[in-house]
This record gives sequence, structure tokens and C-alpha cells, in this order.
Amino acid sequence: MTAPFTPLVASLPATVPFVGPEAQERSRGRTFAARIGANENVFGPSPKAIEAMRAEAANVWQYGDPTNFDLRKALAAHHAIPEDSIVIGEGVDALLGLTVRAFVAPGDKVVTSAGAYPTFNYHVAGFGGELVTVPYAGDYEDPEGLIAKAREGGARLVYIANPDNPMASWHDAARIQAMIDAVPDDCLLCLDEAYGEFAPDSALPQWDTTDSRVIRFRTFSKAYGLAGMRLGYAVSSPEVAGVFERVRNHFGVNRLAQAGALAALADQDYLAQTRARVEQARQRIAGIAADNGLTVLPSATNFVAIDCGRDGDFARQVLAALIARDVFVRMPGVAPLDRCIRISCAPEAEMELFARALPAALAEARKA
Amino acid sequence: MTAPFTPLVASLPATVPFVGPEAQERSRGRTFAARIGANENVFGPSPKAIEAMRAEAANVWQYGDPTNFDLRKALAAHHAIPEDSIVIGEGVDALLGLTVRAFVAPGDKVVTSAGAYPTFNYHVAGFGGELVTVPYAGDYEDPEGLIAKAREGGARLVYIANPDNPMASWHDAARIQAMIDAVPDDCLLCLDEAYGEFAPDSALPQWDTTDSRVIRFRTFSKAYGLAGMRLGYAVSSPEVAGVFERVRNHFGVNRLAQAGALAALADQDYLAQTRARVEQARQRIAGIAADNGLTVLPSATNFVAIDCGRDGDFARQVLAALIARDVFVRMPGVAPLDRCIRISCAPEAEMELFARALPAALAEARKA
Repeated sequence: MTAPFTPLVASLPATVPFVGPEAQERSRGRTFAARIGANENVFGPSPKAIEAMRAEAANVWQYGDPTNFDLRKALAAHHAIPEDSIVIGEGVDALLGLTVRAFVAPGDKVVTSAGAYPTFNYHVAGFGGELVTVPYAGDYEDPEGLIAKAREGGARLVYIANPDNPMASWHDAARIQAMIDAVPDDCLLCLDEAYGEFAPDSALPQWDTTDSRVIRFRTFSKAYGLAGMRLGYAVSSPEVAGVFERVRNHFGVNRLAQAGALAALADQDYLAQTRARVEQARQRIAGIAADNGLTVLPSATNFVAIDCGRDGDFARQVLAALIARDVFVRMPGVAPLDRCIRISCAPEAEMELFARALPAALAEARKA
Repeated sequence: MTAPFTPLVASLPATVPFVGPEAQERSRGRTFAARIGANENVFGPSPKAIEAMRAEAANVWQYGDPTNFDLRKALAAHHAIPEDSIVIGEGVDALLGLTVRAFVAPGDKVVTSAGAYPTFNYHVAGFGGELVTVPYAGDYEDPEGLIAKAREGGARLVYIANPDNPMASWHDAARIQAMIDAVPDDCLLCLDEAYGEFAPDSALPQWDTTDSRVIRFRTFSKAYGLAGMRLGYAVSSPEVAGVFERVRNHFGVNRLAQAGALAALADQDYLAQTRARVEQARQRIAGIAADNGLTVLPSATNFVAIDCGRDGDFARQVLAALIARDVFVRMPGVAPLDRCIRISCAPEAEMELFARALPAALAEARKA
């Protein structure tokens, strides 16, 4: 007997966007010494956020406020945007899923870059959309190419991350704004700014919540160090934001996440420290790469892509050799991006473990 | 310009399943003195769960394990069921949404009781299902009526809560098992046991994870007191459980929720205490009702339905008068269930506030 799944869901492949480090640890039978592969913020959240969550822990018998009123108010003030242009969700992943659900009917086209965020693609497949990809232009996503493809195919959504994941590259605000201005009226640009707080201000367009052709995603998972709490937000026109009221899981946001995010947002001094630490770690990673005869790509994120100097097979061997040495890292999935490995910024302890493991990992890969 | 929503999403009404107490507090301009309306567990979670969450708080820069390995393992041992029959999600609400998504294509029929859980109905509408309702039989959901309606209409899903929300009534395991046995092969029974830990053992069927016609929902929000942490689970055949891998938000579960739930599950002594406190509070609520010339319905949950003795308009006036006296309660939405108001079990402080407010609220309603 086969359970009565919908034809669409029955047709979906049983793939997952990412395997977590814990599953790798279990199959290896050994924990990682350095967890610098998932672009988590190893510097951690503001101590004030940790304190706020601990203080609220005894109150979790209560559901969180389903309107996320306090956090939306604080974010509205922080960005100087209207409260009704903000949607809070259980991380950007959940918000991307709802966005696809709200805009993509089965068979509708969606445009993204080949090698960009797999979880977005997972949602597009999950709602029956037809994914159309545009190659990276060098190590950059290609705004004009994405828009051209969206126009050509009559796409409902077009996705770009700025700064980019997995390459850490970025475009300046003018180029992104030109992209927004070129979005067709029957299409929505998903502008993923999960790493926005690490980027120079010149990379981030002004907020314009009058334009219903763009939705921007921000998160507390990266710069604010709260990945495990699952809290992201989307900023759009109130018209677009309003549709989430019809599809979102209203009581889905965690009460401690609300408390932690509020405290993290209020502690902008700590965010500035994080930015400085990340900048220092980016230089440290560049130095480690140089010590091994490798180069890094410029980064506007809390991770750095190291060009291993050969093809994807070689980089995959380097990655495997690092993992065998208890250093958890990841790498891009498609050529030619996959000549790189991707290292998350971290305190010196993790950087030192990486520095020690890399020469042997490279030697092993070169022998293979 | 109208944003290019899908026709289905554009057609959805802008309603929400529940208004949270916080929104009511803001519109009232005053906080509630007793929060006994959302079936939250006012006795709170195990101190060990609180401690586990506080201890893990500094680690939330890490995503939670997307496989929920440790918690699934613990639940499998607790219930003596296979690990691959368990799906962990961001609360039962999220799991209900995924279930509807996986089984209900637009136009497919879904059967539930008129006046049962509104959030389930919200998901059915959200995925374009056609909701068909069966009346309660007295103050009980009607298993045979639900199955008959499902057979008649060729439904994909049929929903029942046992124990029931909002009436707190329950059926014994034999009757529920007979219902499961009568589910057509092309239909799935959603058996919502969110209040299962409060029910007598005789109300809960044996686990049978070989039957792909039933999926059972449990939660850490009620008996375990972790509503704000958003953690529920579904138990089904591995075939049905497996499909969630294709649609769920893999990194969606909160890291502190995982830690808190593990600790709460391990503290079965505390759960037994909670059950005893809830039983005591049920009697207290019955006593308060009797003091006011009212009767209560039998309850297998952590809330009690008080029959206000007249029609829905009268009960709504009683409810409004309680809210005006800073006591947050809710009530069923459809007649004749709406002759009742629904009171969550709570410590004596809240019970006393309710006891003090009820006589005046009744007097006010009787004068209106």
C-alpha cells in the first residue's frame, strides 16, 4: 500500500539541502575539533542576548506573541521602516519557503544562479516550481543575467544573495538597485541579505518599502550569532508582507528567540565588535592560505572562499582531508566555484586548528 | 500594481486562527492578571528543562542538529517505537501544515468536526483543500460520523483530537482504534494527541507504526510546559514519516528546544507531578463552577469547559466580562459548544483570581 501523497510531493526526490555536522560526527564516530563549515558565527551572540534568554527560560510555558510585536517595532525603529513591512519567521529558510509558496504555482518559473543557496532550490522544487539557472560571472552572481533570464521566461521569482553565499563576493548598492528597478511587474526579487551586517554599507541599497517587486531577507543567525534560535525577517512592501498572514505559522516563532533577538538588536556595540573580529579572522584565513601558496577571494561575509588552485576533485580531496583531521568545512557544489573551500571566521583557537590541518590536507590531496 | 501571488494564495482570506493574549493586552491597554485561556501549562516545565536550556544558551550560535537525532532516539525509547517513525517539528501546528501539504492537493477533500482545531482548518484552506465538517455528537467528536463522511467524499485526510479541544472530552482507545481500522486506504487519519499525556492510559491506542493510515501528533507544549519553545512530533509508519524529509524545514527546530525537550522527557517524575496538579486544578475549576450554579464537562486535558447554561451569546458576554476583569480565557466557536467557556488549569493564584472574577462576570452577563 502506498500512502496517498499528492502527486507533486510523491514526485519529490528524497534529498536534503545540507547534511549537518552532527550527522558527520556520528558517521565518523568522532566529534569535530573546529566547527567552521556552516557559516555559523563562532564568536557567539551578545552576552546580553544569552542573559535575556536565560532570564526568559522559566516563562516558556507561554507561547510567544504571534504578532512578534516588540521585535517588529524594534526592527522598524532600527531600520527606519514601517512595522507592517516586516515579517518575522523561523529563520530565513522558513521565510523563503513561505515566499515560494505564496508566489510560485506548479510549473511557474524561478530564476537563480547555478551554485547558489540550495535550500531556496529545495523550496522551489517542493512547491512544483521550475528552476532556471544562470551561471556565475566569474565568482560573482550576475544581476543582469538573472534579470534577463527572468524576463525571458516570465519568472515569478528571481533570487540573489548579496553578499553571496558560497563565494562571499558582493555587488555595490547601485548595481543591486538597478537590478530591483529592472524586475518585471509580475515578478518578485528575493534579495537574500543574510550576511548583510558583515558587508560594507555601500553594498546595501536604501530601504524602499513602496516597491512590491522586492523582498529582502535578514537574519539573527549570522552576525547576531543566534543560528540555533531560528529567527529571520523579511522586509517588503506592506502588500507583500501582508500575504504572509495568510500562510505563515502564526505561533511558530520561539519565545526565547524573540527575547534573544530583541537583546541582540539592542546591543549594537557587540555587533560592531563582531564585525571587527570577523574582519580580523578574514585576514587570518588569508594569511593561512598564503602560507600554503593559496589565494582567497575577497569576502564581505563571515566566511572566506579559499581557491585551492586546481579543479573540484582536488578541492573535494582537500575538504575530505580536513574533515579527517577533525576540521568541519564545506565547499561550493558546482564548477568552477568548486575549486574553492569555504572557511567560517572563528576565534584564534579554531583558526589555529585549521592552520595546523591545512598543510597536511593539501599534501594528502596532492598525493592522491 | 498587485504582487504576483499564486491564484490560490491570492484567494485566501486574511484571517488568523487565534488572536494572542498579547494583542488583546495591547488593545485593552492593560495586561492580564491570569493567563488561563490558551491551554498553556501554567505550572511550567520541569526545572531540569529550564536548567538544560540555560546551560545550552551560550551554544546557540550553532544550528540545531537537523536530524533531531538525540531527541528521536529518546522518544523512540520512551514509546518503544522505531526512530524512523518519528518526525520532529516546530510544534504540532507546523507538522499539521506539512501533513496537509503532503497529502492534500487543491480540491481534495478533508474531513473534520465543526468547531474543532481552527489551525488545522487554516492549513487545509492554505493548501486549497476542501473542508467538510461533521457536527459534534453532543460534546464529543464523532469518530464514526467522521469516517462515514471521509468514505462518502473520498477524503485524503480526516482529523480528530483525542482528548478533544475545545471540549476536553475523550474516547477510549478501542473506539479510536476502530476508527483507525475503518480509515480507507487512500486516506490518512490525523490523530491529534496534543493533550494525550493528561488523558487516562485507556484513551490512547497502542502504537502501531506498521499502519500507513494514521499519523499521531504529540507535543512538548502542553503536559511538558514548553509551548514557547515550539517542539512537537508526529508518529506514523516510516513510509509516511519519510515523506516529511522532502518538505520539512530541515534546520527549523530550535537548538534550545531540543535541549529542553530532552530534559523534560527524561524527567517523568515531574510529568507525574504536573498530572496530579492538573487533576487538582480540574476539581478546583469544577468547584468554582458549582459555587456559581454552573456545571463543568468531564475533562481529560489541562483545561475544563464550563457550561454557562444558556446560549453562545450569553457565554460570549461572560467571557467578555472575565476579560474586562483581567482574566484571559477563550471559548469554543460554534453552537452548541459555544454555550461553554474554556478555563486552563493553573496554580491556586490564578484559580483564585478566576474564582473572584466569575460571580461578577456572570452577574454582568445576566444583566445584559
